[in-house]
Amino acid sequence: MRHPSGMKDIMENIQAYMQQVGIAARTASRTLAQADTSAKNRALGEIATTLLEQSALILTANSRDVATARAAGLDEASIDRLTLTEKTIRAMSEGLLQIAQLPDLIGAITDLNFRPSGIQVGKMRVPLGVIGIIYESRPNVTADAAGLCIKSGNAAILRGGSEAIHSNQAIAACVHAGLKAAGLPESAVQVVATTDRAAVGELITMKEYVDVIVPRGGKSLIARISADAKVPVIKHLDGICHVYIDDEADLDKAIRIADNAKTHRYGVCNAMETLLVAEGVAAQVLPPLCKLYLEKGVELRGDAACCALVPHMTLAVEEDWHTEYLAPILSVKIVTGMDEAINHIATYSSQHTDTIVTENYSRAMRFLREVDSSSVMVNASTRFADGFEYGLGAEIGISTDKIHARGPVGLEGLTSQKYIVLGSGQIRV
Amino acid sequence: MRHPSGMKDIMENIQAYMQQVGIAARTASRTLAQADTSAKNRALGEIATTLLEQSALILTANSRDVATARAAGLDEASIDRLTLTEKTIRAMSEGLLQIAQLPDLIGAITDLNFRPSGIQVGKMRVPLGVIGIIYESRPNVTADAAGLCIKSGNAAILRGGSEAIHSNQAIAACVHAGLKAAGLPESAVQVVATTDRAAVGELITMKEYVDVIVPRGGKSLIARISADAKVPVIKHLDGICHVYIDDEADLDKAIRIADNAKTHRYGVCNAMETLLVAEGVAAQVLPPLCKLYLEKGVELRGDAACCALVPHMTLAVEEDWHTEYLAPILSVKIVTGMDEAINHIATYSSQHTDTIVTENYSRAMRFLREVDSSSVMVNASTRFADGFEYGLGAEIGISTDKIHARGPVGLEGLTSQKYIVLGSGQIRV
Repeated sequence: MRHPSGMKDIMENIQAYMQQVGIAARTASRTLAQADTSAKNRALGEIATTLLEQSALILTANSRDVATARAAGLDEASIDRLTLTEKTIRAMSEGLLQIAQLPDLIGAITDLNFRPSGIQVGKMRVPLGVIGIIYESRPNVTADAAGLCIKSGNAAILRGGSEAIHSNQAIAACVHAGLKAAGLPESAVQVVATTDRAAVGELITMKEYVDVIVPRGGKSLIARISADAKVPVIKHLDGICHVYIDDEADLDKAIRIADNAKTHRYGVCNAMETLLVAEGVAAQVLPPLCKLYLEKGVELRGDAACCALVPHMTLAVEEDWHTEYLAPILSVKIVTGMDEAINHIATYSSQHTDTIVTENYSRAMRFLREVDSSSVMVNASTRFADGFEYGLGAEIGISTDKIHARGPVGLEGLTSQKYIVLGSGQIRV
Repeated sequence: MRHPSGMKDIMENIQAYMQQVGIAARTASRTLAQADTSAKNRALGEIATTLLEQSALILTANSRDVATARAAGLDEASIDRLTLTEKTIRAMSEGLLQIAQLPDLIGAITDLNFRPSGIQVGKMRVPLGVIGIIYESRPNVTADAAGLCIKSGNAAILRGGSEAIHSNQAIAACVHAGLKAAGLPESAVQVVATTDRAAVGELITMKEYVDVIVPRGGKSLIARISADAKVPVIKHLDGICHVYIDDEADLDKAIRIADNAKTHRYGVCNAMETLLVAEGVAAQVLPPLCKLYLEKGVELRGDAACCALVPHMTLAVEEDWHTEYLAPILSVKIVTGMDEAINHIATYSSQHTDTIVTENYSRAMRFLREVDSSSVMVNASTRFADGFEYGLGAEIGISTDKIHARGPVGLEGLTSQKYIVLGSGQIRV
């Protein structure tokens, strides 16, 4: 129980407050949807400048959050994510200038074709409207998310972690100054002022004011939001990514890719968690590859056939094939070939990113077509599954949902399309 | 209470049955996703032929449903929708052949570009997976929906109205025969065998087996499904469509379009429900236009200014601007111009379809950009908002949601895209 007394009043106040935030966001979203590219870019530039000018104030606010977090006994990893420096503020500022340089997608008309009736039918790209972003400790998300929403013509309601409230408010002040300088409504980006959890419950169910929710954080946060949201959610839960080394793989490429996919970074969603190897090449490829892993301190868990080939490998259990380790641990399985690999992926993959390494054209095409993940790759590291690497510019997240955005979500993922019809007086007969 | 005794057992049985249906659909969806165009088209052709061959059996099953419905006192409009004839069976058969003639979108790769790292990144169009379709009396939906799902590579779970169960089962038998003849799994299209409503509750919450729900029917059915569904829903609730006659309209076009948008068909979602007229042309355009309406028996409800201009018009109340009449009733409002028209539409439109009639280029462009509806038109009747008219071939419905499909939903609306990456051994550095 968070409110031992007067809970009903507080809940009602929070509801009223969030409704107010929602109405202001909806109103601002209509202005922002019509804003021209130069106004949006000017706002981004002004925010970038203001962040640098106000860095002392932001760092002071941040110290306050960090001190409170330390006193409350928050773990070091969380405090590290919470802490801002001159360098991270500079990175936020540069990120906004990069978003300003990306093309403006809003209003673009595509696929305009004449129909037999004489009307022309096409599609116009439009913003989604109001985007609610729910995130944990990192205060830099406040600037990144504001930038992406402004450029894509969306109003944003930002709900950061309670431990970062002063940092987020200080960054929000810079965002508001920039919006104002560019003649755009300040309520286009609102940071929720209360740290009460009930505010999240309101945000994810206010269908009339919020068009989509983007949760950024750990799996439990995202699972909880997805379960309770009435508004659509752009998300992924797990990144159980696979590399399949086919028996017609170029083994040098295979070792390079499988090494990079696991060891380039361990704690990221596009890191490989399970390696599948065709039995025809297992004896050749696994010993040198596993030697690399063991040298880098990666713990190996394999099926019985793998354990027979590689020393220092422990026997994997069913649970391993389901696990996103996000750590220097790898599960390895020898498969009879392509069919077993595809079936294993269909059973255990989280539909995030899966790669085949092969020189066989038909198998490459079959893998691309049959593996039902948001990114499917041939002869490339799973680590490439990323908005920047794909050329989307900035990235607000990666979606494993099939409806709407799928894969890395950049500016385009924050937009929708409507049909437009250009006639010259046509009626239906 | 539908089950006075043994309710718990029945509910558990329905849950187990629906799980079985879900598993079979998921398995079949994997085969159908890989099926080549010729197999899918062959199935459609075989179903079309079988429907004609089995028309006597289908009509017998349908008579049984109609007799039961009459005995139960179902209204005439519903019985009319339920009743099949030789002609409607021929239309179903022809509809399937038309779907066979549409291009196959599945597997198409677009936007393939090299990135600085050397990888190529593109998008591949893929099916959604399993589509649940919930509909009311019309048994022809069984054939139409089966055809659209098969062509788009999706498995379908069809849940028709309980009053049409024998008709739907007879049509489903033809669908299964066609799938079998083409070497495709019969469980690619399943008609739910129970008429218990609990089956719907299962269908719309089985996230692991169902990717999207398409409800087809009245507003109350759709509202109920949207409220309870855990699976994404492709839908629209209301079609409160507007025509705005600008003061720079060509008045001949304006009268032609406003007449057609209201009177071409009354009971359809893309019929105009509210007419907005700029005050500068109201005195010229409203009297002749309203004369047309009154001759066709359309009841007119206007604001005070309209009532002063047109005889036999009653004063509209606030409720009228919110109402989808689906009947020969029209609300009419005189506005000062473009801004008031856009604001009225933003307040009252159901974001389905709205039209401006004007010869002014800048206003036409502004209306297209600023009106946030799934279809926005210039100088054309709202009645064009339709999958066939837009060149989508067949149509499974119209969506007013911004996430994913928006506007008429045809084959493409039943598909998603995944990213594909083509490398030659690249790793991230």
